[in-house]
Amino acid sequence: MADIPKTYLEGCGWIKHGDPSNDLVVSSRIRLARNLDGIPFSQWASSSDLRRIASQTLEAIQACDHMPSVQVFNLEEMESVDRSFLSERYLISREFSKSGIERYAAVHENEIASIMINEEDHLRMHALFSGSQLRRAWNLIDAVDSELDSRLDFAFSNTYGYLTACPTNVGTGIRCSVMVHLPALVISRKIEKVLNAVTQIGLTVRGMGGEGSEISGNLFQISNQWTLGISETETIDKIERILQQILQQERAEEEAMIERGRTELEDKVWRAYAALRYARVMSSSEAVDLLSTLRLGRTLGVIDTPAFEGINEMLIMMRPAHLQKRAGRALKTAERDEFRAEYIREWLAGAGTR
Amino acid sequence: MADIPKTYLEGCGWIKHGDPSNDLVVSSRIRLARNLDGIPFSQWASSSDLRRIASQTLEAIQACDHMPSVQVFNLEEMESVDRSFLSERYLISREFSKSGIERYAAVHENEIASIMINEEDHLRMHALFSGSQLRRAWNLIDAVDSELDSRLDFAFSNTYGYLTACPTNVGTGIRCSVMVHLPALVISRKIEKVLNAVTQIGLTVRGMGGEGSEISGNLFQISNQWTLGISETETIDKIERILQQILQQERAEEEAMIERGRTELEDKVWRAYAALRYARVMSSSEAVDLLSTLRLGRTLGVIDTPAFEGINEMLIMMRPAHLQKRAGRALKTAERDEFRAEYIREWLAGAGTR
Repeated sequence: MADIPKTYLEGCGWIKHGDPSNDLVVSSRIRLARNLDGIPFSQWASSSDLRRIASQTLEAIQACDHMPSVQVFNLEEMESVDRSFLSERYLISREFSKSGIERYAAVHENEIASIMINEEDHLRMHALFSGSQLRRAWNLIDAVDSELDSRLDFAFSNTYGYLTACPTNVGTGIRCSVMVHLPALVISRKIEKVLNAVTQIGLTVRGMGGEGSEISGNLFQISNQWTLGISETETIDKIERILQQILQQERAEEEAMIERGRTELEDKVWRAYAALRYARVMSSSEAVDLLSTLRLGRTLGVIDTPAFEGINEMLIMMRPAHLQKRAGRALKTAERDEFRAEYIREWLAGAGTR
Repeated sequence: MADIPKTYLEGCGWIKHGDPSNDLVVSSRIRLARNLDGIPFSQWASSSDLRRIASQTLEAIQACDHMPSVQVFNLEEMESVDRSFLSERYLISREFSKSGIERYAAVHENEIASIMINEEDHLRMHALFSGSQLRRAWNLIDAVDSELDSRLDFAFSNTYGYLTACPTNVGTGIRCSVMVHLPALVISRKIEKVLNAVTQIGLTVRGMGGEGSEISGNLFQISNQWTLGISETETIDKIERILQQILQQERAEEEAMIERGRTELEDKVWRAYAALRYARVMSSSEAVDLLSTLRLGRTLGVIDTPAFEGINEMLIMMRPAHLQKRAGRALKTAERDEFRAEYIREWLAGAGTR
């Protein structure tokens, strides 16, 4: 059982894997939901059931070749700030980071795969990569799933497929999602239309924080809604097809924006850079907005640095629990806003922007 | 007769003289109003009267030891942008920069003294220095006045003193003014009370552009209202006494602001610096506000550079006519805002701020 490893404070492992240089697709994630046969779903399971689930699945995970040097976190033993840390980093869900018994997270050495034990389902496992990498995520999580399947007895129906606590996951139990940055569509107010179209063809759109989170930083998480009657690879193909269409619309809008006035855009980007580079107090929501504008500046070639990877990482590293772990102590909101400003300032000063 | 000299584009002469490092008093100015005896005031004078005034006074001025290497500008022959240039630089009044016949300006080689011919009075002469330098301004303009008095016949009444076109100038014909920067009193909303008190004791408060201009950049021009029954040196003493009281109130308010939250102040100052350092588009009014905040940052020791002298100079050099002379062509508002941003950016990049 582990505390937050020190290496986690130096940078975000999964961001370095995949394609961290993708200018519009921040990350790709595939999640599978699995349950052990013959044991009630987590919500209805007794403590001894939960303990049984945990011991069986942890044993299988630790023997799993595709989960090398796995880090196991016992959430019950962790402080609230450490649980939030894992959630901010997308290694566990927000819901899971709240208190609960017999909850564990098992994380791949590079953070590119993570398994929650006793979340809504007995097992929620995901693979997560930078950039547009749904296939790669699928290959990894499918391999993990196969290994676990050979050691565990998953609840499966020949009619429905994998059985899950919530009916929306029955079947493949898969959720594929891509996090995309669509600033031009937001600025031109065309985003609503695009997202409505996406929703109408059975996909879901959420904010960067996942379920229940608000849209911020022009970042949108697009994922499948259906898991029944459609295969895993069909689901991936569908999302990738739609993703390409959305990206085309974003690019067209970016060109139109440049056409309308490159100087105004440059002004916006450089003012965002300036505030990030010199502010002494910065809230999380302001930082997200400014980092988004900086990202737009990189996409449009207005600004040379920092790299997309750095921006993606900062979007995570500047969050409350991350800042407090970095500071080594609890920070009130006002202190956090100062600490965040200082951290971002030093990061940008080191980025060597002209 | 001269066009705008090239050296005028490199910097503002009068700013370098006096005490350019004063953190709250930007400049001190003393103006005298004089008229030739036996010729109607300018508004009622015929063209030949005006011509006669011009030739007599120009001859006297050019022989004046205290106006070395005098530059004479014939406003009738100048383009509108050049006349505005002189007005932006405080060498002539705004009213005088508009069209009119037989109007001349004679400027000291260091720009520390300037004489308008055929303004509201036949002669409006002033001395202008950086910092709190009313005595020095008085010594210079008094010397110029004495020299001219020995060569010209000024309208003078033993009962009233010098006769002027407007009764408010009759007597000494003197107007003493100091331009002060009072950001803390503005931020704390105590400025109104201070200015009311100043007005009640017979002083006048105006914006940085002089008569009829709005207050901006937290800059206030404080000057005497009365010229009758009070001597020149008494007028100066009175203004200097009030000035010291105002400065004390500003300093007290600055300390209170720091007490309330140094970080917020630092944040405000550095964000102003950041916008000035990186913006691609900047209006004149935004620049004035940001330069004022930068000035406050220097006063409070939040920021090391640029020097007060540089800030004072930029407040003038970034004005529309100055920018257009620098560009060597007419610039529309949008072009000016881009040119201004670039100019300020390069200036700050060269200031070597940490």
